[in-house]
Amino acid sequence: MDIIDLVLGKPLATEDEKAERIGPVKGIPIFGLDALSSAAYGPEAAMTLLIPLGMAGIAYILPIVGAILVLLTIVYFSYRQTMQAYPHGGGSYTVATENLGTGAGLLAAAALMIDYVLTAAVGISAGVGALVSAAPSLQPHTLSICLGILAVLALLNLRGMQESGGIFMIPTYLFIACLLAMIAIGVAKFFIAGGHPVPVVAPPKLGKATEAMGVWLMLRAFSSGCTAMTGVEAVSNGVMAFREPTTKYAQRTLTIIIVILMIMLAGIAYLAPAFGVAATNPDGPGYESVLSQLLGAIMGKGMFYWVTIGSILAVLSLSANTAFADFPRLARAIAQNEFLPHSLTLRGRRLVFSQGVYALAILAGLLLTIFGGVTDRLIPLYAVGAFLAFTLSQAGMVVHWRKHGGPGAKRSMLINGLGAAATAVTVVVVLIAKFIEGAWIVVVLIPCMILVMRGVKSHYARVHEATRVVGPIQIEKSGEPIVILPVEQLNAVSEKALRFAWQISKDIRIVHVDCGEPDTGDLQRNFPECVEEPARAAGLAVPQLIVVPSPYRFIIRPILDYTLELERQNPGRTVSILIPELVESRWYYVLLHNNRSEVLKALLTFQGCQRTTIINIPWNLPD
Amino acid sequence: MDIIDLVLGKPLATEDEKAERIGPVKGIPIFGLDALSSAAYGPEAAMTLLIPLGMAGIAYILPIVGAILVLLTIVYFSYRQTMQAYPHGGGSYTVATENLGTGAGLLAAAALMIDYVLTAAVGISAGVGALVSAAPSLQPHTLSICLGILAVLALLNLRGMQESGGIFMIPTYLFIACLLAMIAIGVAKFFIAGGHPVPVVAPPKLGKATEAMGVWLMLRAFSSGCTAMTGVEAVSNGVMAFREPTTKYAQRTLTIIIVILMIMLAGIAYLAPAFGVAATNPDGPGYESVLSQLLGAIMGKGMFYWVTIGSILAVLSLSANTAFADFPRLARAIAQNEFLPHSLTLRGRRLVFSQGVYALAILAGLLLTIFGGVTDRLIPLYAVGAFLAFTLSQAGMVVHWRKHGGPGAKRSMLINGLGAAATAVTVVVVLIAKFIEGAWIVVVLIPCMILVMRGVKSHYARVHEATRVVGPIQIEKSGEPIVILPVEQLNAVSEKALRFAWQISKDIRIVHVDCGEPDTGDLQRNFPECVEEPARAAGLAVPQLIVVPSPYRFIIRPILDYTLELERQNPGRTVSILIPELVESRWYYVLLHNNRSEVLKALLTFQGCQRTTIINIPWNLPD
Repeated sequence: MDIIDLVLGKPLATEDEKAERIGPVKGIPIFGLDALSSAAYGPEAAMTLLIPLGMAGIAYILPIVGAILVLLTIVYFSYRQTMQAYPHGGGSYTVATENLGTGAGLLAAAALMIDYVLTAAVGISAGVGALVSAAPSLQPHTLSICLGILAVLALLNLRGMQESGGIFMIPTYLFIACLLAMIAIGVAKFFIAGGHPVPVVAPPKLGKATEAMGVWLMLRAFSSGCTAMTGVEAVSNGVMAFREPTTKYAQRTLTIIIVILMIMLAGIAYLAPAFGVAATNPDGPGYESVLSQLLGAIMGKGMFYWVTIGSILAVLSLSANTAFADFPRLARAIAQNEFLPHSLTLRGRRLVFSQGVYALAILAGLLLTIFGGVTDRLIPLYAVGAFLAFTLSQAGMVVHWRKHGGPGAKRSMLINGLGAAATAVTVVVVLIAKFIEGAWIVVVLIPCMILVMRGVKSHYARVHEATRVVGPIQIEKSGEPIVILPVEQLNAVSEKALRFAWQISKDIRIVHVDCGEPDTGDLQRNFPECVEEPARAAGLAVPQLIVVPSPYRFIIRPILDYTLELERQNPGRTVSILIPELVESRWYYVLLHNNRSEVLKALLTFQGCQRTTIINIPWNLPD
Repeated sequence: MDIIDLVLGKPLATEDEKAERIGPVKGIPIFGLDALSSAAYGPEAAMTLLIPLGMAGIAYILPIVGAILVLLTIVYFSYRQTMQAYPHGGGSYTVATENLGTGAGLLAAAALMIDYVLTAAVGISAGVGALVSAAPSLQPHTLSICLGILAVLALLNLRGMQESGGIFMIPTYLFIACLLAMIAIGVAKFFIAGGHPVPVVAPPKLGKATEAMGVWLMLRAFSSGCTAMTGVEAVSNGVMAFREPTTKYAQRTLTIIIVILMIMLAGIAYLAPAFGVAATNPDGPGYESVLSQLLGAIMGKGMFYWVTIGSILAVLSLSANTAFADFPRLARAIAQNEFLPHSLTLRGRRLVFSQGVYALAILAGLLLTIFGGVTDRLIPLYAVGAFLAFTLSQAGMVVHWRKHGGPGAKRSMLINGLGAAATAVTVVVVLIAKFIEGAWIVVVLIPCMILVMRGVKSHYARVHEATRVVGPIQIEKSGEPIVILPVEQLNAVSEKALRFAWQISKDIRIVHVDCGEPDTGDLQRNFPECVEEPARAAGLAVPQLIVVPSPYRFIIRPILDYTLELERQNPGRTVSILIPELVESRWYYVLLHNNRSEVLKALLTFQGCQRTTIINIPWNLPD
């Protein structure tokens, strides 16, 4: 067990749970990485669509980001209220289920699960992509590096919140500090220069305008920019991870994350036009990201530039961790309602919902493997899931306010209603704009997942119904079981089994399958002397020897047939089949012996009736 | 079962075995393909080494093939005699074991097994290689095609001798007929033209001599030419596959194969110089195989040419089948002496030693996969295994004659001794000549395989020793078993288990693991009412409820610890652990339930002592 302790950490007792809880300092890296890192690609995604507008396009980024900030504010207040109302975890799954019904809840669940798997896979491959473009010799190992990072993230998360939070703190706070410093200095330079700052490193010249602004382009730019809002959901599912008073700490964490994110978004949107920075074509030559240009224009390309670029790459690739922090909690909430396997509700040795971590690692690993570690094309798909969840969450809150009332309920309802409408429009816009590029996958996948979850629920219901017993146990006065003992030849293994048979029954049938091999007569010849006589002498029941011919050399089928026939002939009696088994000290010795007993056990388990019991008599080979 | 019947054929009864046996007509394709097909590459392998001699080199092929024919004759008589002496299969493994001891036998076994795996892999990849060079668009699918053919061959062989023999007859006899016709016409033309025939299609011009003949070159050419002798061993392992009188039919088959092979080899060696045909550089441009040149020179490149070339390709790729016919018989002979797993001695539904077919398919498949379907470089390695086997077989026959004497024993001993010496020299020459090219692999592999086989033998010996019982069964008068029943909650599944517990014992301990979950008190609260009272009322033993706390939420470990502790405290009593198990109607429902019972069973099996029994109580969920 020592090696497991080393890798996964010593087990934590259930009562240690409180000590594992976190405050905002660790909460921001754990639940905020995904949201904060989206500042690095959200504004750029919108600005890329404005390239055809040339010089004129730069100006539009401010109103677009402004609209996103309004949306973000609404979503923020909504989640803040939700956490208050659902202190055990108020993700959109919970809110939608409680207020809009199971169907809406499952829709949110499916959307969010897809979203988290994408976050994990795309986050890692984005980070590795940046690494590979810096060191092209690593290109052939892209997939292995991705899977390696995935494994490390899974492992860190299996070790628990406290530890993983500690590890992610440095890059997260470095990233925040660098970006905020850049924005502060940029704004200062802007005012000192009287509104006309001179870039330290001039950004690339803009191309000529080839298009004019239109509604459709505006909508597409807005919906692309909305990827800046992904990851905001995370804290609401993780309320229970925070120290007492949990709701307060969770709300504070969300507030800090949102405020920082808004400053970053606003700062970028404000400074980019001021310094003449626009997006460049990511597929063309001389591509440079907006943040890189802005950094160069404000700070020059010195030490600060490289530290900031490094922290951006780190935060991008670690943003996958938010999925690991949140997916298991979401899966647990769904599993508690029996729409997913029960095992997702169990806490592992470090109090983490380990099965959820495994599930996410496997799904993200599959996605990475299928796409060979290059999942850039999946980035737009994020927004569908995130905004579907926002919409359902806010719509749920509208119903919540109508039900519960209270002071300010009307105003809250209005805010949430507005938010729901705005995010719903965004879902539709994103879906239409990205349908061909891959959003159709989400449209196909979500109903499939809902069907599976409903299937799981109905299966559990069926099992509960079938196995439920109420009141005192039903006692059946049935006699001793009929014991069947398949024997190939008499040896220490079958002897042990026979001794056990005498302990539990007087009706013992020794079944021998006769394949017509030359040594088949031995058992029949020796049976009276070796078994019958000693049994009689000891006053034990004399077992019956039943020889079953098997012209086609099948061994398992005749034993199975005999057992099933015996069950049929003896209704009301238990039939116990004894399976003697030689147990080897090393696993690879298994290859040297037939594994018929395993097959027989499996077939009996599935084909036997309610009166079958299968008794394994392991005989351990002395070392 | 119908689909299995369709794919593998209906099962054959053990008594049908005689009907599955074959005569020479089917025996030649089954056991002769490998030997006969080597006529297509053996002479060429020798002639390739003579290229540097230029015009002068052509003349040397006749003495080299002459030497090979002498060796072949000796080997032929040796195997003929061996089959007489060992009518149950007289391969070199058997002969070496019986006459030279286990060590020599295992050496032969390892050499032959390597040889057969190589035959299967190289045969298939040679055929596919020819196909791919004809249709280059198939290039990317080389490996899949190889594995596909491998699977088809394995399947055909699993269907039994009669069927696979029938399928291979057409290409084999077409190949024989074409080559013999070419030789006959070639010889006729040679005599009609008074020793100076004019080629229909002139072979390519020869290069200038760059080397002179030397002893080393002569030896290397000879050892390369010896690949023409691979596959001769096959019939001797398969004697039992022939109709009564088995030995006579087997000998006749071997005779026909050897005679045809000798005519082919002699014909090619005789006609090549006569028509001015020499080998061309296989890596250079304008490469043409010797047989293709000879066909062109004698028959022209018309219809006959293409039919013959087609039959050569077919026979080359089907030569892998000889390995499938023989490897399982060899493996069975080794397994009968307990040097390989017993299961290799069992006949499957079609009376074939199925496990051997699987083993060969898996090993050859691995080899093909590792080399990506291109295994040409392994061709020289064949000869090592084959000639090692020849040497051991003939050395064994020398000892055999000395032991058994009889008329002509002296002369036989002389022939076999000469053969042993000649083939031994060949092994050494081949090893040295090909050591760097890969023969070292064989040198490393053979001792490893011998170690593994000895390990298997000693393991079986240990098991036999440990499990052997002599005379009447030992009866221990022990009381009822102590029954342990782990219960999470009372339901129909645990109820069934408890009812069985009452059937077999009065000492029942219900073990409940308490992880500190909120619903953990239910069982404790309801136990008196639901279990104790009804038991007392029915006059049954009252089970003890044992609650084991588990602060780290482990479930299996506490149950295991309790069981082992109980065993320790109660020496001399059997401890039976009852494992209630919910059985699902569909396999994928397994994902929805924990598989703790499987883990518990496995751990108990390995860690429990000789007094443990594990009782499975399957509870089948009604559909």
